[in-house]
Amino acid sequence: MSAVLYYFDGRGKAEIVRLAMAAANIPFTQEFVREKKQFETMRAEGKLLFGQLPMVEYEGHHLVQSGSMARFFAEQGGLIGSNEEEKLKIDILFEGTRDFNSAFMPYGFLGFKEVLDNAKATAMPRYLPIYNFILSRNGSNGYMVGSKLSLADLGLLEVVLTIEELLGEEELKPYPEVQNFLKTMKSNEQISKYLNSDLRRKKNDEKYVNEVKGVLY
Amino acid sequence: MSAVLYYFDGRGKAEIVRLAMAAANIPFTQEFVREKKQFETMRAEGKLLFGQLPMVEYEGHHLVQSGSMARFFAEQGGLIGSNEEEKLKIDILFEGTRDFNSAFMPYGFLGFKEVLDNAKATAMPRYLPIYNFILSRNGSNGYMVGSKLSLADLGLLEVVLTIEELLGEEELKPYPEVQNFLKTMKSNEQISKYLNSDLRRKKNDEKYVNEVKGVLY
Repeated sequence: MSAVLYYFDGRGKAEIVRLAMAAANIPFTQEFVREKKQFETMRAEGKLLFGQLPMVEYEGHHLVQSGSMARFFAEQGGLIGSNEEEKLKIDILFEGTRDFNSAFMPYGFLGFKEVLDNAKATAMPRYLPIYNFILSRNGSNGYMVGSKLSLADLGLLEVVLTIEELLGEEELKPYPEVQNFLKTMKSNEQISKYLNSDLRRKKNDEKYVNEVKGVLY
Repeated sequence: MSAVLYYFDGRGKAEIVRLAMAAANIPFTQEFVREKKQFETMRAEGKLLFGQLPMVEYEGHHLVQSGSMARFFAEQGGLIGSNEEEKLKIDILFEGTRDFNSAFMPYGFLGFKEVLDNAKATAMPRYLPIYNFILSRNGSNGYMVGSKLSLADLGLLEVVLTIEELLGEEELKPYPEVQNFLKTMKSNEQISKYLNSDLRRKKNDEKYVNEVKGVLY
């Protein structure tokens, strides 16, 4: 079943949903919301339950809330664990990646330099050692739980790709397990196909932030 | 199986976990973290995966991340839906309540008056009509999904109890479905038992905020 993702033309809150759909092998297309009017129309038509994007049209439903959508699509792809203990672990580790990722979100409020400086000063030295440890404890196989890809991995991948692209891969050098994880992720067929496709949007930049502001305000 | 919740002596991020354990009929006791030293010791012992509270000791595990714990305990109690469509709906509606609830969180940064003024000006007029509509669309039976209690209801309950206690029940008058929902929730045996027990902490106030700050900074 094919899905349609409605979002701005950037990564933002939709990126984890894209990664989950890609890894779960759920084909999707995208509609970019570039103008206030488009957004207002979707709201007026009742397609956005909480008045927010991203929204995914899937099997006749209008799904919202990026965390819920990521969990739903990951479940479709068997990426949320195969027993109760794995499921709980994956959910907790995934939630941790959402906290980590939130450090890279407030570009619109703080500007790029300040966001990245803050992330380097606080979120990165806090979370990278923890995830490095978790990867090591799981046997250094490039996954966080068990021996296959899970939603927790996708959550961490989103952040690590951001760090690599915006701050440079040398930031990951003190964390060999995270480097090995990134290599494993990039060699995953579905993920690599997605990252090299048009579905993957360019990194968030000033142009994107301004387009979002133009739609919302 | 009994659980032990470690948190500050207040509601904060632990309240949704308490509500989920109460509604799922999982007995729990509480250890209040009142001093910096206690907190540092727990961190040093590796009991707090991300260095944060709340933490729940359960069946030999140290669980963290309030959203994950709420989902886990709610699942134990059969409160996350009985088929795929219900599960997805409940997850989305629950996530919406987390966004709504976050409006009542930054007391430590903004102070009580500003938090409540902001919530009245933006979050409440945004979310209350939506949840009123959802309750009505589900048949005005006092639940958001189907005809029984779910995690989505617990999420909304947390916020509505806050509004009732800090701003007064007259704030809910324009939303009769929400008023009916609150009545239904309060008449639930497990919830009412919890709300009238010592497990329910006092509303967040200046004293609580200062105690939290003393532990963290």
